[in-house]
Amino acid sequence: MPRYKLLIEYDGGPFVGWQRQANGLSVQEALETAVNRYCQVDAVVHAAGRTDAGVHALGQVAHVDIPRDDPPDRVRDALNFHLRPHPVAVVTAEAVDDRFHARFSARERSYVYRILNRRAAPALEAGRVWWVAAALDAEAMHAAAQELVGHHDFTTFRARECQAQSPVKTLDEISVTRHGEEIRLFCRARSFLHHQVRNMMGTLRLVGEGKWTAADVAAALAARDRAAGGPTAPPQGLYFLRVEYPASEDAAP
Amino acid sequence: MPRYKLLIEYDGGPFVGWQRQANGLSVQEALETAVNRYCQVDAVVHAAGRTDAGVHALGQVAHVDIPRDDPPDRVRDALNFHLRPHPVAVVTAEAVDDRFHARFSARERSYVYRILNRRAAPALEAGRVWWVAAALDAEAMHAAAQELVGHHDFTTFRARECQAQSPVKTLDEISVTRHGEEIRLFCRARSFLHHQVRNMMGTLRLVGEGKWTAADVAAALAARDRAAGGPTAPPQGLYFLRVEYPASEDAAP
Repeated sequence: MPRYKLLIEYDGGPFVGWQRQANGLSVQEALETAVNRYCQVDAVVHAAGRTDAGVHALGQVAHVDIPRDDPPDRVRDALNFHLRPHPVAVVTAEAVDDRFHARFSARERSYVYRILNRRAAPALEAGRVWWVAAALDAEAMHAAAQELVGHHDFTTFRARECQAQSPVKTLDEISVTRHGEEIRLFCRARSFLHHQVRNMMGTLRLVGEGKWTAADVAAALAARDRAAGGPTAPPQGLYFLRVEYPASEDAAP
Repeated sequence: MPRYKLLIEYDGGPFVGWQRQANGLSVQEALETAVNRYCQVDAVVHAAGRTDAGVHALGQVAHVDIPRDDPPDRVRDALNFHLRPHPVAVVTAEAVDDRFHARFSARERSYVYRILNRRAAPALEAGRVWWVAAALDAEAMHAAAQELVGHHDFTTFRARECQAQSPVKTLDEISVTRHGEEIRLFCRARSFLHHQVRNMMGTLRLVGEGKWTAADVAAALAARDRAAGGPTAPPQGLYFLRVEYPASEDAAP
């Protein structure tokens, strides 16, 4: 059966998250319903990352096997037609080899977290940013964030519900930059623990406010204890940005 | 009575426009209601530009006289408190001389218009961009837009309802640039006619699609006839970006 790789954008606000759940509509269910309307089959849509309720995606990647050998652009357009009115868009579709797996083939994932740092609440960006009224020092946040780079036990930044086999991960890059009233955290790794980015963000906010130092962040990481970390930042500032695959598995057959 | 200059951001979506109207909530009414709750007076809030229903603002400027000599930051915070839950934010407030008038002192206004140019409808930017699925040539649009720069009779791009005394305006700058999937039109003038930016945008879209040439745009302008121009672009892609004032009238007393 032809396999298609989908690049997907969504507004996480109205969804219970990526994964199918009994208590509400998930992005996965919205997509699988669109596939069913298009092809009259119950196909599973596999994603590179299972985002939480309220978390957005600019570049989620998924794959699905469908019993139609349509040109990829027609697959994209048909899924978008059947996705309406949900805020989910298939930006591109691509025919791929059946060895391609959106989750298991992924070799790098990146996220961005947006803070609106000003006294006034967001008007245009409501639901799209974390509003922090207290002035934050982005340079101090960036410096402290470097304590997290590398191969570590990230238990301090791991949600209790996390299903990963090991809390040891390699964080390849993390940066915090200011763009006017906005502060952006970017991070990149092969994979992340559940809530890892939001927990790192909530901790770095303490640095931005001057309540914590870079040494406090290093000590929290070394403690390997969730209670040693800062609070979990809210979902609406987080965007699943991009997934990288090895060139060979990314190509069409 | 102290006069305050307000820098205002809003999501135009839920409003009937800037100006008070009987048929729904305007941004002006939302602000005047907030002033009333704060100071118990019925004050008029004067804006630099009267945006239409659905048009957003990143940098609208207004002024208001209130019977309280509060520090400007307190004025800003109090208005924001009373504006909730409307998507209107007073980004800054500043004490100004009573010769300052948000509308009449303005010497330059700028707008940006955002097009999302891709096959998939917007998921995260719904209501924030004009979605145009057909591929547009931004360079051709930019070149054609230069026909509009300068001192002209802009009747071709003027709404029937426009209340300006003269259709003659000077367009100081207009540019069209591509940023990935997004095309942005930026324009700058002392003042604009009603619907001028949206009518120029709708016309330049025809150029982007290859249906019109730069010479067609020049001919449409020369015709001084609204029927000679392209259609009116929808409001949700338009942002009132910035207002400039002479330095002397901009300062606090």
